[in-house]
Parts: sequence; structure tokens; C-alpha cells
Amino acid sequence: MKKLFQLFFYLIISLAVQAEDGYSLWLRYTPITNNETRTAYRNAIKGWQVAGNSPTLTAAKEELQNGLNGLLGQTLPEMKSGAGIIQVGTPASSPAIAALIGKSGLKDKGADAFLIQSSNGNSGATIIIAGNTDKGALYGVFHFLRLLQNGSSLKNLSIVSAPKIQHRILNHWDNLDRTVERGYAGFSIWDWHKLPDYIDPRYKDYARANASVGINGTVLTNVNANALVLTDQYLEKVAALANVFRPYGIKVYLTARFSAPIEIGGLKTADPLDTAVQGWWKRKTAAIYRFIPDFGGFLVKANSEGQPGPQNYGRNHADGANMLADAVAPHGGIVLWRAFVYSNETPEDRFKQAYNEFKPLDGSFRKNVVVQVKNGPIDFQPREPFHPLFGAMPKTPLAMEFQLTQEYLGFATHLVYLPSLFKEVLDADTYAKGAGSTVAEVVDGSLEGHALSAMAGVANIGNDRNWTGHPFGQANWYAYGRLAWDHTLTEEQLAEEWIRQTFGAQQALVDTIRKIMLTSHEALVNYMTPLGLHHIMGYGHHYGPAPWYDKAPRADWNPTYFHKADKDGIGFDRTAKGSNALAQYSPEVRKQYENVNTCPEEHLLWFHHVRWDHKMKSGRTLWEELCAKYYEGVNSVRAMQKSWNNMKPYVDAERFEQVRMLLAIQEKEAVWWRNSCLLYFQTFSGMPIPAQYEQPDKTLEYYKNLRFPFAPGNG
Amino acid sequence: MKKLFQLFFYLIISLAVQAEDGYSLWLRYTPITNNETRTAYRNAIKGWQVAGNSPTLTAAKEELQNGLNGLLGQTLPEMKSGAGIIQVGTPASSPAIAALIGKSGLKDKGADAFLIQSSNGNSGATIIIAGNTDKGALYGVFHFLRLLQNGSSLKNLSIVSAPKIQHRILNHWDNLDRTVERGYAGFSIWDWHKLPDYIDPRYKDYARANASVGINGTVLTNVNANALVLTDQYLEKVAALANVFRPYGIKVYLTARFSAPIEIGGLKTADPLDTAVQGWWKRKTAAIYRFIPDFGGFLVKANSEGQPGPQNYGRNHADGANMLADAVAPHGGIVLWRAFVYSNETPEDRFKQAYNEFKPLDGSFRKNVVVQVKNGPIDFQPREPFHPLFGAMPKTPLAMEFQLTQEYLGFATHLVYLPSLFKEVLDADTYAKGAGSTVAEVVDGSLEGHALSAMAGVANIGNDRNWTGHPFGQANWYAYGRLAWDHTLTEEQLAEEWIRQTFGAQQALVDTIRKIMLTSHEALVNYMTPLGLHHIMGYGHHYGPAPWYDKAPRADWNPTYFHKADKDGIGFDRTAKGSNALAQYSPEVRKQYENVNTCPEEHLLWFHHVRWDHKMKSGRTLWEELCAKYYEGVNSVRAMQKSWNNMKPYVDAERFEQVRMLLAIQEKEAVWWRNSCLLYFQTFSGMPIPAQYEQPDKTLEYYKNLRFPFAPGNG
Repeated sequence: MKKLFQLFFYLIISLAVQAEDGYSLWLRYTPITNNETRTAYRNAIKGWQVAGNSPTLTAAKEELQNGLNGLLGQTLPEMKSGAGIIQVGTPASSPAIAALIGKSGLKDKGADAFLIQSSNGNSGATIIIAGNTDKGALYGVFHFLRLLQNGSSLKNLSIVSAPKIQHRILNHWDNLDRTVERGYAGFSIWDWHKLPDYIDPRYKDYARANASVGINGTVLTNVNANALVLTDQYLEKVAALANVFRPYGIKVYLTARFSAPIEIGGLKTADPLDTAVQGWWKRKTAAIYRFIPDFGGFLVKANSEGQPGPQNYGRNHADGANMLADAVAPHGGIVLWRAFVYSNETPEDRFKQAYNEFKPLDGSFRKNVVVQVKNGPIDFQPREPFHPLFGAMPKTPLAMEFQLTQEYLGFATHLVYLPSLFKEVLDADTYAKGAGSTVAEVVDGSLEGHALSAMAGVANIGNDRNWTGHPFGQANWYAYGRLAWDHTLTEEQLAEEWIRQTFGAQQALVDTIRKIMLTSHEALVNYMTPLGLHHIMGYGHHYGPAPWYDKAPRADWNPTYFHKADKDGIGFDRTAKGSNALAQYSPEVRKQYENVNTCPEEHLLWFHHVRWDHKMKSGRTLWEELCAKYYEGVNSVRAMQKSWNNMKPYVDAERFEQVRMLLAIQEKEAVWWRNSCLLYFQTFSGMPIPAQYEQPDKTLEYYKNLRFPFAPGNG
Repeated sequence: MKKLFQLFFYLIISLAVQAEDGYSLWLRYTPITNNETRTAYRNAIKGWQVAGNSPTLTAAKEELQNGLNGLLGQTLPEMKSGAGIIQVGTPASSPAIAALIGKSGLKDKGADAFLIQSSNGNSGATIIIAGNTDKGALYGVFHFLRLLQNGSSLKNLSIVSAPKIQHRILNHWDNLDRTVERGYAGFSIWDWHKLPDYIDPRYKDYARANASVGINGTVLTNVNANALVLTDQYLEKVAALANVFRPYGIKVYLTARFSAPIEIGGLKTADPLDTAVQGWWKRKTAAIYRFIPDFGGFLVKANSEGQPGPQNYGRNHADGANMLADAVAPHGGIVLWRAFVYSNETPEDRFKQAYNEFKPLDGSFRKNVVVQVKNGPIDFQPREPFHPLFGAMPKTPLAMEFQLTQEYLGFATHLVYLPSLFKEVLDADTYAKGAGSTVAEVVDGSLEGHALSAMAGVANIGNDRNWTGHPFGQANWYAYGRLAWDHTLTEEQLAEEWIRQTFGAQQALVDTIRKIMLTSHEALVNYMTPLGLHHIMGYGHHYGPAPWYDKAPRADWNPTYFHKADKDGIGFDRTAKGSNALAQYSPEVRKQYENVNTCPEEHLLWFHHVRWDHKMKSGRTLWEELCAKYYEGVNSVRAMQKSWNNMKPYVDAERFEQVRMLLAIQEKEAVWWRNSCLLYFQTFSGMPIPAQYEQPDKTLEYYKNLRFPFAPGNG
């Protein structure tokens, strides 16, 4: 017995060490270490019952079993009834649950809602996890397991939860050759070559992870689209993925290349008003639904950055979107039409172009079209003001597009907790219908009473073992899904949940890592683009700083276009004296920004060209403040490093070392950003970097000569 | 206690299931399941001692500890002396070992040799694992662990082993953008972007796996080379990898782009006789050795398939190789110069060109040059006769280049055990110095007394979790290394070793899987290229059959060039009446092949254009035999499937299911090969596929119209 015990012990040690490679994400289900909590749970939970055997309820059962057995460290039996039973089901699958739901208020909450309720019946305390649909029950199971992982009390549970947003979607910018545009976690997890016959176990784990945070849609392919994915050869592969995802309530979407009727259809035009083109899309869509009966719909990037679109034929975005909307409508599909458009020919401030093109089309889109708008007006910069389209198109459902992949935020080597950014935008007030008209309420449809609502996150997922390259990239995937379900959750709360599930529950660990996460976004803004600087990164690959770059083939791809530094000052004047982009906001928002002296300093250079000697709130000049912020950014990273090093006793060796190495890279690159930006801007300000700071040890020329021909993500 | 036990039990179950994803390769060190064996080992092994603390001996200690603890399922202590001790060291690190080695005969066996010897001293039975160097001791530890994994008796151990080949190298065809040319297991494991600061744990596991089978060199970059890897920016990254590999006795090599002096050196020429060019390479090489003091040397593909080379300047291969050899010689490096050359301009049988170019240069290469020759004269086909250069350049060390990645053998979805192919070539008789002058003896240097010897395997490794895509691809990596160490090992023996280490020791499992492996190569030859057919695969990507293809920009890239099917017959006449390639072999070899009636049928169409009604040994006509072989190939795959399905009780769920799905793809593609090839060749033979066979259910047109725009490995 002792020998066997010893054997088991070493097995555990060796396997546990091996297993902490991040693959399990926040679904590790390792035994609860707090004795009190574990005992309480073991007393409260004696077994489980899942009523029904649909694929989704089977998935729920499998997850509940694995989760409970793992967390409680004992095998719990299937039970018929009795004290301590966890009952899972729907009104359709269980009369008991049908009875209960009548009283709970769950009924009107929709297909995705769930109920978790403890009750004391005749046979003792039980917990019911119910959904109006199988999918709701599955969400309930994941939420219940989350409660356990977070050490929540199981007494008097009475949770009814329904998502605020209907379509909670990941956008993969994955190409058919498995490169991922702006992907930094390896290559695409979709192994197209081996599909449909080889089903990577990863596909199911991907579905589990998404379902656990409420994500219910995935766009498999890059918005810079390839029409071949719409051919039978690929649809067969897409269908195989959809089959894996379906039990987890996840619908598959594809990007539609606007010129597909020409490229794979043999037509001479892709004009959306041409009946042959319309017919082709209808037939093609019907074919897709034959492969994938619950196909979600199309995501389209049209007439943007070289992609074809309706404007090639003198039509507008509504013409294009509506044609596709009509094709998917009979099948229940939707069209997500991106508003990220800007034209090379128009010498207009790029900030303003999406608004200018889309605002006039408000009211002309079909009911099943959502216009998908990036969080800010330029392009996923470390900090942007909210996009002026939010609140400006009351008749059109607008989807929020966030970017989880860190295209402009240090790739997968910088620790940046993005919910800080997400919440800043979601909570921003558009004043569209008076004070309190937040961006979140525009997106969830409540402000204008739209039934259709969507949120998109550009995925940070690749075939790296830990999915996201940086172990902390997982937190952004996690929190994105949770926020799409409920945007009132705070970033603190989501950080804490994620930490407990991903690293452990010791208080010192939770407190320290939470602090690292919550300071990380501001740190990055400071060492990259403080005070409202934006778009000053390397050309093409977007790696590292290049504020000096001015050789791009179009003006608005050049950092110099955006910072406009000169001997007088720095920043883009978007007031009435400048591009007047501020006019796109409601008067209340405009007012916040239009005065250089009262404009929030975090957005200052977004809206004003500011003199180097402008006095800031701190009493410092703008130049001194810029220096202070850049140095503050680097110092924050160094503080993160120190904090992390204290975590060694709490974190497994593999992930500890990974994060340690990545933070070292982040520190090195933060210094690179700081030094090269300050040296460059100094050529305009003519002012010294204050002597109290460590001075740059390389020249501006050195930084300008760095080249990165194989920086990742340029796929 | 019972609860704790239960907890542990479920932990093990959940972790063990998770862990069998193939990442651990043949180094799983799971507890020995045979009770008798485990008891015997536990009685014989009580602890260990590693004398010395160099990085290599530290690695040996770590491996021994992990291996013993895992296999025996108990923690063994470090011991000073006593019965049951495993003592590891070198003469330099331990006086006891120094004394023992005197008698053992190890001393003269070189730096890599090891000794494993059991002895009964005053204090009881002990086992000594010793090397002349730390590296030898490490090899000994890996071999000892292999003995345990294979259930070998520990009584009267007296093993002295030294490699027959000095440089046992993997060639990675990995590009700096992480694509892998002809790679089918995902993308490159070298994450160049994050190097040198981020050290993926995989790098160490890669080194361990290689060291465990005796591989002592790795060429990191593609033979279609990029000069940038020779710049400081990349050498810093290469050095970081070399630092990880060094303790495991693995040297790093790079591919040298011949035109690098122009591309990164700013010179106007790369002429090897130009003193500025020579000087540039000398300085560049010295710089490399400053980064990597034990740098192995250069691998060069020159004047082949568009790569630059000495012939661009009117010089020959020896001029090019010698210039580089002179640069690395002062530092102890070598040059591996590839003989895989063929010219578009020369209307000569491609079979003959390498011989024609290199044979005349025999004797003109520097002492530290090895000419690296592919196993066959064309290009890694499913079966080739041995390359005529073997035995034809007595004054020059010739390295064998095998291809582990299955460029022409079904990518990573076909189960093919390659040692069957390797041994066929290694054991072939060149008759260079009379009967028994095997290719293996040419390569190991023994035939002509060369001290310098090398073997290269083009790696099948990518960032797929299980390294090789197909779980059975691991066997080819494993067996390649073992054969490079000792080419007298049999394919049966190596299969059995690998199975026991990778899947388990149950006899039914070992017997069944071994049979699958040993029949797999002939199966593939039969369903792809029976009877000496070759190079009839898809153009460019090399995926699937395309014997009809004749549109390539050069004649010898077209399948039709190689099979020459017409209404009379099929095959390439390489006798004196044809291209006379046979003249490149010794008379004895030529004689075996030159008569169409006595030529071994497995090579028939390599050397003869044979009439469709030619009578084969079976009594069938050639056409009937071709049909029979193609059908036999498919049937073999179906038999493999059946056998594998019987393995379900013995194999973990994840790998069982993986292989099951992959075999289904293999069966589907075998049918595709068979049907499309027979339908196509039938257009020449005009004969029916005999009625007893299942008839093709698709037309030749269908097969001809298949397109694979994103087939992998075209990087």
C-alpha cells in the first residue's frame, strides 16, 4: 500500500509538472487546495444527474463530471435523487425542472439563459442547473464550475443569467495556408489539409473554452478573404469543424470575398445589383446551409485596404450588405459588415472616413445586417477615443469589434490585460440620447431597442501549446467572452476569476497577479503612446516603434501623418481649426475634447497639436510630461517584473519561467520604445531628457536602422 | 488516507489521459507494467551517483533521476556506494571509473563511446555507466534507460558501444518565417522572433530526444538558404539555441547561402577564387565562432534548383566547398556539400547528373569536406536504387542524406516506417572493392579508411504537439538516429525498441504494431509507385498522384518524363540502349539490372521500358502485375487498419483515435493513388483492370481536375 501510494505520488508530481503548459486554459479543474472550501463542497455535492442525452447535454454531463471529479478530488456518482444532487436539464428534458422554471423568471430570458438554484426539498438540499434550452443548461454548468473554482458559497444560490449581447463572436484572421494575419501565437489551429477526416482534439477543447465564457460564434477565416473557402472542397472541411462546435452552441461563420462570384463562380461581375450575382450568392448560400444547417452567416470587409466591394461597381455598402443579407435571410443567417474603411484617394482625416461613409446609410440596411465597428476610429491603438459611429446610427445594429491579438500592443510578448481598454470604451458615454447613453448600450441594442446585437473579438489564438503565446493572453480571451455576455462585469472581477481558475486561489498570488494585470494597460500606453499619441509603430509588420517612418505608399499609413511633430509641438488637430473630426461626436463629447486646456490628457494628442511648452496639469511642460510618461511606462514594467518574481513559490516552474522571460522581453522593448520615441521627438522639441532619468544608451540612428524582415503576423 | 488515495487516483487518471499527446516521444518513463521486471529492477537498483557536475553530466543526472523514478515508480536516492548503485561518470570525473575503464576496452573507442557494466564488488552488485567524455556518459545513461524500457536483464551487463558514424545530423528545412519546406508537422519549432530571450521548453526536449538516440548535430535552416541567418541579429539567436543544445552534445550547423557575400556582405561577387570573397567568409566564420565556439560548420546546396553556387563564376563544386572549408578549418568545422544537383540546360537523364558532376572532382576536396549524397539518384522516392556516387568517389568522404519528412511518401498522414527503406540502401552492395562493399561501409568511412563520416536525416519535426504530425513519424526520427549510430541494427529490432518505449510492452501490442510498421513501406510503394515507377506525384506540392502531369517548366519535373508510358509499354530505359545510367554503377551492379528478364522487379521500371504484355515472374503480364501491386497496396493499408483497431485496449484514447483517423486518410489516399494511376496508365495499355478487383468509382478526368492550392510544405 505504501509503495503504491509512493508510486502514485511520483506519478502525480511528474505528470502535474508536465501538464502545466497552459493548454488547459482556465478549465484546469485541479483539486481545490483550500481545506475549508473543499470540505464544504464535498459535503454539499454528493452526485449529479443530467436529464437528457442530446449532444449538448452530453457535453454538459462530461464537463460536469470532469469538473466535479477534478475539483473535489473524488469521483461523484450519477444519482437519481437525494441530498447533495446537482440536477441539470431543461423544461423539455425534465418535468421537475419544468416545474421549477415556472417560478424562477428564467422563462423569458431567452435561449442562452441559465438558472442555478439551491433548494431544500423533501430529500434534502439540491442544486438545480437549468436552461430554457440545452445550450442554456451547458452555460449553467460552466458557470457552476466557475463558482466552485472561485470558492463561492453554494448556500442560497439563486442565479438567473442571460447574455446582454446575442452574438458573441471570435474573428479569426486565419488564412487557408495556416498563416494568421496579425497572429503571434504560432499558426492557425485549423489544419485545413487534414480536414475533414482528421479531427484534432484541440477543436473540441477550443469549443469547450469558448462555451465556458459564453462565446457562441466563430468566424474561421481572415477578413482579407479567399473565395476558395466557399468551394465544396473547403465547405466539407468547415462542416467538420461545425460538427465539433455544434454541441457547444457555437455557430460557424465565414468571411465572404466580395468578388467570389467572379473568382469561383465564373461570372464577369460581382455587382450586387446584378441579378446573376444575386442568384449566385443565393445558390452558394443554400449550398453552404446544406453543408452546415446552422451556419451563422458572413463577415465582410469590403472596399477597404484593397479588398473588393460594392463601390467597385458604383454601389454603396448597404447595397453590398443587403444582397448578402437577402441570401442568408431564408436560412436564418446574418451579415456582419465591417465599417473599417478608409480611402487612399480621399485626402480626408482617416479618423473621419468610416463615419462619413456609413452614417448616411443609417436605415438602409436589411434587418439581418449588423455593421461591425472597431472600438476606435483609427485601428486598435493602445488607447483610442470611442468610435464616433457609436450612437450615430440609431436605426442600425452596431457590433463592437475588439482586437484580442496584440497587433499594436506588443504582439504576444507583452503582458497587457485588455479589459481595461474594453471597459474604457464600453463605459464611454456617447450622449446619443442624453447622458448615460453608453457605448455598451448602443452595442447591446438596449439604447435603440434593437433585437439583433453582436460583439466580435479578433482572436489571439494560434497553435502554440498555450493557445495565445503569452500565458496572460488567455485572460483577454476569457474576459472578452465574459464581457460579451455581461458588459457590466468589472475588469477587477474578471481578473480575479481568471487568476483563480488559471493559477490558483492563494490570496497573495491573486492579489499580486491582479495588480500586475490591472496596471498593465496603462503601463503599455505610457511606454508606447502616452498622452494620445497613436499609430507610430513599425511599418507593415507593426513591430516596435518607428515614429520617424514616412515612406509608406499612402499618407495615412505613415506615423508622421498621425503625430505631426514639428518644432512648435506635436499632435493631430481634430478641432474645428483642424480636421474637425470632433464634429462627428455629440456636442457633449465634443465639448470634453475641444479645448486644449480641458481635454483629458490621456487623449490630448488625438485632438490637438500642442506646443512643447504647453503647461500640463502636473505643472510640467508637454515635453517634460511626455518624458515622464515614457519613463513611468518602463518603470511600471520593472515593477511588474519584481512582483512576478515574488510569485515563484506559487506558480508552477514552466509558466513561472515563461512569464519571467516574456517580461524581460517586455522590459527590453519598453526601453526601446521609450528611448527611440524620445530621441526622435527631441529632434523637434529641441529639449533635453531631464537629467534625473537614465539616458538613452543608443542613438536615434541605431534605432532607425533596425530591421525585422521576419516579424510574425504579416501573413 | 483512503480519501487522499482516492484523490491521487483520480488525479492520475485525469493527468495521464491528458499527457498521452505524444509530446514525450519515446522518453515517457511511465512505470514498468510487468510485475516481474519491475520487481527485478527495484531489487537491482537502489540509488545512483553521478560523478562530476559539468552541464553534460548534470543533464545525465537529471535524465537518470527522472528516468529511474518514472520507470520504477519510486524515488531513488543519491548514494555514495553500496549494493544497487548506478555509478555514472568518466575517467576524469571519477577515479573508480578511471580504474575500470582501463580493462574495458572503452578507452580507444572515441569521445562518444560508452560502457555499461555490472560488477560484483566488495559492497555488492553495482552498475557502472561510463564514457571517455561527459558526452559518452550521457549516451550511456540514455542507453541504460533504454535497456530498462525494453525489459532487458541487468545481469552480467558488459556493453561497450561506439558510433560507426562520426557526425549524426538532422537537417531542418526550416525558413526564417517559420514555414518548413516539405514540412508536414506544423511549422518550425524555432521561434526566431522570440529568440534569444525566450527559450521555449521544447528546445531542451528536442535536445534530449536527439541525444537519446545519438544524434549530435543539427542544421537549423533550409538548404534553400537565406543569408540573413548569418547576420549578427540572427547569430545571437542561433547562439541561444546552441547554448541549450550544448550540454546534450549537439552541435549547431547553418546553411550557407553561396551568394551571401553579395547579399549581406556588400561585395560585387561571390566567386570562390576571389580573395575578397574568401576574406569575407573567413571573417564571417570567425564571427560565427565568437557567437558559437563549437559551431559545427556549413551545409550547402549550390547550383541546384536555382540556388547560387560556384558555377555562376565558372568554378566547380570543389572550388566552392574548399573556400568554405578553409574558412571553418581553423575552428574545427566541416563543410557538408550536397551532391543533389541537376541542370535544366543539360538534356541528360537527371539520374546521371550528380555522378557526372562530382565523380571527376574526387580527390580535389579539402580534408574537412563531406559530399552529402541523397540515398537515390532522383529525389527521395518511395523506392530508389542506391545512388551511383556511393562507391564511386573513394577519395572523398560521402555522407548519406535520408529524408525523414515524407515529401513523397504521403506527408504526415501516411504511416510509413522508413528504416525498411534506409536498410535497403545501407545494405546494398556497391561492389566498389568487390562483393560486400556496402553503401553503409562507404558512408561510415570503413571501406576507404576515411576518419570523417556523416549521415544526415531531413527532419520530419514541426511544432505539432507530437513533433512529427503522425505519431508513427516519431519512429522514423528515432530509428534514423539509432541507425546513424549503428547501421547494423535491424529494422525489426528498432521497431520493437520504439514500440516498447512509445506505447508499451504488452506482447500483443508489440507484435501487432511491429507487423504494421514492417509491412508499411512495401504497402506504400505498392499503392504509389510499384515495380520501379517513380516521380509521378502532384506538381509543386508533391501531394497525391499526377502521372499525367506534363506542364512543368522543365522536362525533368514532369511525371511523364519519368514513366514514359506509351502504347507499347512503360518505364525509363537506362540501359546502354537508353540513357545508359547503368554505366555509372560497378559492373556487378549493372549486371543485376541490365537484363529486363532478370532485373529485380521492384526496380524494373527504373531501368527498362517494358512492354505491357511482358511476362512477369508471377506469370502475369506487366499490366496485370501493375494492377495486382496497386490493389495489394490498398489491401495492405486495410489490413493495417484492422490490426490497429484491435489495439484499442492497449493504447490510450487520444493516440488510438489519432492513428485511426490517419489510417482512414491513408486508405482513402491509397485508393486515390491506385485508381487514378491505373486509369491513366490504362489509356496507354488499353487493357482492362481485371474484373476480380473493385473497379474505380471516379473517372480519370475527376482525378485530373483535383486541385490543392494550400497543400502544406510548399514553404
